[in-house]
Amino acid sequence: MQKPIDLAKELWPVCRSITGQGVRDTLQILKRKNPNLKVKSIKSGRKIFDWRVPQEWNIKDGWVKNMDGEKLISFKENNLHILGYSIPINRVITKKELEGHLYSIPEMPTAIPYVTSYYKKRWGFCVEEVRRKTIMGQQGPFEVMIDSSFLSSGVMNYGEILIKGKQKDEIFISTYICHPSMANNEISGPVVASYIANWLSSQEKLNYTYRIVFIPETIGSIAYIQKHKNRLKKRIKAGFNLTCIGDERDYSYLPSRNGNTYADKVAKFVLESIKKDFKCYSWLDRGSDERQYCSPGIDLPVCSIMRTKYGEYPEYHTSLDDFKVVTNTGLEGGIMAMKKIINVLENNHIYKMNFYCEPQLGKRGLYPTLSKEKNQLEAKKILNVASYCDGWNDLVDISKLCELEFDEAAKIVKLLVSKGVLRNEIDRRSHLAKIKRLLGLARRFNKWWKTASSY
Amino acid sequence: MQKPIDLAKELWPVCRSITGQGVRDTLQILKRKNPNLKVKSIKSGRKIFDWRVPQEWNIKDGWVKNMDGEKLISFKENNLHILGYSIPINRVITKKELEGHLYSIPEMPTAIPYVTSYYKKRWGFCVEEVRRKTIMGQQGPFEVMIDSSFLSSGVMNYGEILIKGKQKDEIFISTYICHPSMANNEISGPVVASYIANWLSSQEKLNYTYRIVFIPETIGSIAYIQKHKNRLKKRIKAGFNLTCIGDERDYSYLPSRNGNTYADKVAKFVLESIKKDFKCYSWLDRGSDERQYCSPGIDLPVCSIMRTKYGEYPEYHTSLDDFKVVTNTGLEGGIMAMKKIINVLENNHIYKMNFYCEPQLGKRGLYPTLSKEKNQLEAKKILNVASYCDGWNDLVDISKLCELEFDEAAKIVKLLVSKGVLRNEIDRRSHLAKIKRLLGLARRFNKWWKTASSY
Amino acid sequence: MQKPIDLAKELWPVCRSITGQGVRDTLQILKRKNPNLKVKSIKSGRKIFDWRVPQEWNIKDGWVKNMDGEKLISFKENNLHILGYSIPINRVITKKELEGHLYSIPEMPTAIPYVTSYYKKRWGFCVEEVRRKTIMGQQGPFEVMIDSSFLSSGVMNYGEILIKGKQKDEIFISTYICHPSMANNEISGPVVASYIANWLSSQEKLNYTYRIVFIPETIGSIAYIQKHKNRLKKRIKAGFNLTCIGDERDYSYLPSRNGNTYADKVAKFVLESIKKDFKCYSWLDRGSDERQYCSPGIDLPVCSIMRTKYGEYPEYHTSLDDFKVVTNTGLEGGIMAMKKIINVLENNHIYKMNFYCEPQLGKRGLYPTLSKEKNQLEAKKILNVASYCDGWNDLVDISKLCELEFDEAAKIVKLLVSKGVLRNEIDRRSHLAKIKRLLGLARRFNKWWKTASSY
Repeated sequence: MQKPIDLAKELWPVCRSITGQGVRDTLQILKRKNPNLKVKSIKSGRKIFDWRVPQEWNIKDGWVKNMDGEKLISFKENNLHILGYSIPINRVITKKELEGHLYSIPEMPTAIPYVTSYYKKRWGFCVEEVRRKTIMGQQGPFEVMIDSSFLSSGVMNYGEILIKGKQKDEIFISTYICHPSMANNEISGPVVASYIANWLSSQEKLNYTYRIVFIPETIGSIAYIQKHKNRLKKRIKAGFNLTCIGDERDYSYLPSRNGNTYADKVAKFVLESIKKDFKCYSWLDRGSDERQYCSPGIDLPVCSIMRTKYGEYPEYHTSLDDFKVVTNTGLEGGIMAMKKIINVLENNHIYKMNFYCEPQLGKRGLYPTLSKEKNQLEAKKILNVASYCDGWNDLVDISKLCELEFDEAAKIVKLLVSKGVLRNEIDRRSHLAKIKRLLGLARRFNKWWKTASSY
Repeated sequence: MQKPIDLAKELWPVCRSITGQGVRDTLQILKRKNPNLKVKSIKSGRKIFDWRVPQEWNIKDGWVKNMDGEKLISFKENNLHILGYSIPINRVITKKELEGHLYSIPEMPTAIPYVTSYYKKRWGFCVEEVRRKTIMGQQGPFEVMIDSSFLSSGVMNYGEILIKGKQKDEIFISTYICHPSMANNEISGPVVASYIANWLSSQEKLNYTYRIVFIPETIGSIAYIQKHKNRLKKRIKAGFNLTCIGDERDYSYLPSRNGNTYADKVAKFVLESIKKDFKCYSWLDRGSDERQYCSPGIDLPVCSIMRTKYGEYPEYHTSLDDFKVVTNTGLEGGIMAMKKIINVLENNHIYKMNFYCEPQLGKRGLYPTLSKEKNQLEAKKILNVASYCDGWNDLVDISKLCELEFDEAAKIVKLLVSKGVLRNEIDRRSHLAKIKRLLGLARRFNKWWKTASSY
Repeated sequence: MQKPIDLAKELWPVCRSITGQGVRDTLQILKRKNPNLKVKSIKSGRKIFDWRVPQEWNIKDGWVKNMDGEKLISFKENNLHILGYSIPINRVITKKELEGHLYSIPEMPTAIPYVTSYYKKRWGFCVEEVRRKTIMGQQGPFEVMIDSSFLSSGVMNYGEILIKGKQKDEIFISTYICHPSMANNEISGPVVASYIANWLSSQEKLNYTYRIVFIPETIGSIAYIQKHKNRLKKRIKAGFNLTCIGDERDYSYLPSRNGNTYADKVAKFVLESIKKDFKCYSWLDRGSDERQYCSPGIDLPVCSIMRTKYGEYPEYHTSLDDFKVVTNTGLEGGIMAMKKIINVLENNHIYKMNFYCEPQLGKRGLYPTLSKEKNQLEAKKILNVASYCDGWNDLVDISKLCELEFDEAAKIVKLLVSKGVLRNEIDRRSHLAKIKRLLGLARRFNKWWKTASSY
């Protein structure tokens, strides 16, 4: 079976942007892993809330030559060399004019920066500082060529995988596909999402329905929300934005806007079980699609799951964000974290005792018959779990209250259900979820109330 | 007057178990101190929730002799020597067979362990490790005799004292009487409860009705709940489980399941006033009848009041739990703590000012007429207390808010009532208590709501 | 323009008490600064809740002479020399008798103490300890004269300034005018209130209506509440008691009784912005008119704003509380704090986005068009503010959430309103405020609920 790192390397060379052939090529590669991926499109120029879908941009080639015909910069060498959304150009220009169109990072002399100009017409080349100096050491003039095009009648594409479960309520996973050749930001996100989709498709029965989207960042999530607002608000039980999830450095989490959704609860619970001191960011640190999913009035239960967050590692948004940063182990860690989150979501039910007072474990072979025996500890755990199965606590609450691993608590609960001690209250919960939605106004009023009346 | 330690010593020799003559003998001794104690019984075999009342077990004698007729172990020497609920036996057996029926604690060579086998038929002897070694040093065979009997048509007994107060709402005190000769666990509990009952009976007027039960642990409380569930849920305002309350080592508290009942509030407030750093256990540390009283759906406001908790002192559940552990001073400390709790319960009313703005203390002789005088401090306390008498805070809240001892706050309130500044709002409170019961569902929904929707 | 310290010095010589000509003279001086000040009166003898308006007290002169006709103590030298509310006297008395009518502070030998006896008939002289010793060193007898009078048909006066704003909801400012020549307690309060009133009157448009009262402490606020209870409870959005607000030592705050009103929220927010570690007192430290405004059942949203609190500086309630304690800089600091509070109150609105998802700042010239540009930080602040404009957070909440100064957040919000991104939700808020008043009972029930049912 293909390793995650191999899929990542396959995606690497494609020149992605928020629109264009690169996005479609990327989706085709992902579709090979998940044939149930549907490629969707939204027309350029369409109004989406405060924004408009941009013209489709495509690029074939681009370079800078000196008068000896020597290629000094070449798109084909590294697609980061072209300023994103550059307009076409084919001219001989002076050294001085060229200088104004070169982008580099003096502090990182060997890194090609990733720069874009989506909403203002520009052309330019991004280069290593050392290369910029070499070029500027030459005489000029220079020949510059960018073979790009804009298509008003184009589209913006995105991909979507739907995996149906028993319930219509959905778990939502979002990741983005609009950056050229950089590994952690962003190839890691689509790779992990792709493996998760594949794994979910192979599961025999799922409780929730899963929806996984591969979209251009910002403009893509805004367009997606505009198109599916009602369904998203009605159906999403928990959602996760996956980004920078392929390195080995850390595990990190960025909350939803109010930080108290079901997605936040499960994400924090699981990440803490993986790494006690996982990194917890604040809403003010945000920078990915949670900005749209959690915007006022949308307020979906979506948080971000990352390994090392964008902006927090030195190679971010440069050509150095490569496979020295992202590794197979790093990607596997991201996949593992998401699988654990899904495991909790699938099994986090509410239980209730079938009778009052403690169960008699002895007659079920679960309690030592002699008052001094050693397996009291196990019996104590069982009684602890049972004591919190009051129809209100879910299994995450119970794990925390009983200081048990989720899987251990789940195992105990399953045993007690099979022994006739507990029953699953899931139907009531989903019933109450409806009441909860109806009472949404009450909650918001309550929040306002506290905000306005107390400190 | 008899000292608590003397009652304890009177109860000591009786061989108690969860059923049988020992329980009845114990109740008769307690009845002498409290003639209003009623002895109740529940038939063996009766189904109680997930359990069944066991057959009545009685024992007359038991011993192990060697072939010289020498008694190596004797029930009459210490009733802990017989495994609780042993089946009858009268046989000559090999040393090897005997060995499998001896229970000792290698780490505590001079302690007889307390062992029972209520729900599986067994016979056995509990001995000091040193005695076990001596016996095993002999040749054998041995003659073993246990003169016990099981009665299918028997009963399980418990005692109950009812002391009526002005209100039908009840304060509930529970303690257990099913352990043979051990002092802290369990003679201390019945002794303290007995003295409290005696003291309550001598009070001229009580606000609450008091119900004090002496039951076999676990099976007794389950049976009691099954029989009186509706009354318990309707009437109990606060309840306390008394156990291990006769040593001088510590004061400790184990909360109700959710830890936020009126009993918890008062218990913590009083224990803190006795010992700033009293020991606070968690629900996970539980092991007595709060397990049943606070089980899901029962959820009575019951917490445990102890000196040194079961399982937390080395002599626990052995013959060393004797009157070196439990002392008269220790028992008196337990009695004092319970009296303080009752004092707070009886006086913890809600008050309201008879007019708006501050009272004019001067015209009532409670304020210095000269602005520089010294008794401003006393006047300040009075005004502090009055300022919180808003019809919502009870006297426990006010004591905490004003940083006063409960008795000092109570004295101030009494003075202000007599001076026409305050009025007692108790009727409204008990009226609201009814609303509160009706709104029980709201509270539980609220709890679920938070549990399910936020972290 | 007159400096605050000059107004303070003008008020200094007037002999104020809770009633009498001194109060009226004070109000006349204040009326010169604020011609819209109305002088009101309440008749002596009127019953106000638990109190009664006292007889009007006036004083013309008072002195102690020795037999040589030498004036040893003179009212005209310092009005603190006369015990407040002294009855008239004109007699020759022995040294021994005089001694019982002299008040001094042994520990502060050069300070004249401020002493009153409002509610018990007395006469007396307050003197420096050194002067007391000198007098007691003389032979006697002494001639004592106090030319004071009591008027049963008199009045108690107070002043009130009303400055109308767009809304009928009021911001309430209270300060007191019943102390003779002492600077911080109390001239500073009326001076600051007077400057604030003057400044408010000059504002072109105010959102709230402002009501500023100058009253005798305690009896004055009780009488005012009795007269205007319904209007106060209906209209006051936030209120501030100003006292000891003219020195340069500290900024301090004393909460309302429950500490969670809108006034508390704004006061704490503003004072923290002025001085990170401003002094926060507790309700138990109170001693001014918040005692009445926050009394049970009145519960107005009123807290106290001070520089160095009464009782907390050594010169308090003596002749040493003079213009060495209070300075023009100190008074200007008090005025500045109140202006900042008013600025927040006037601008603390609720906002809502005009569309879903993030605004496109780029097309409004607020976002860098090139992805690597420097002004990202400013754009980030704008997006942070917008992300919290959900129709529930007010601007104080948003400032805290975004870690911005209030004025910076206000500037961003104003910009976004002008750019069509946000709209002001103020009308809805005042509409909800009505619902809130109707639901007042719910809040109180909720408080009681928690108080009674949990710890």
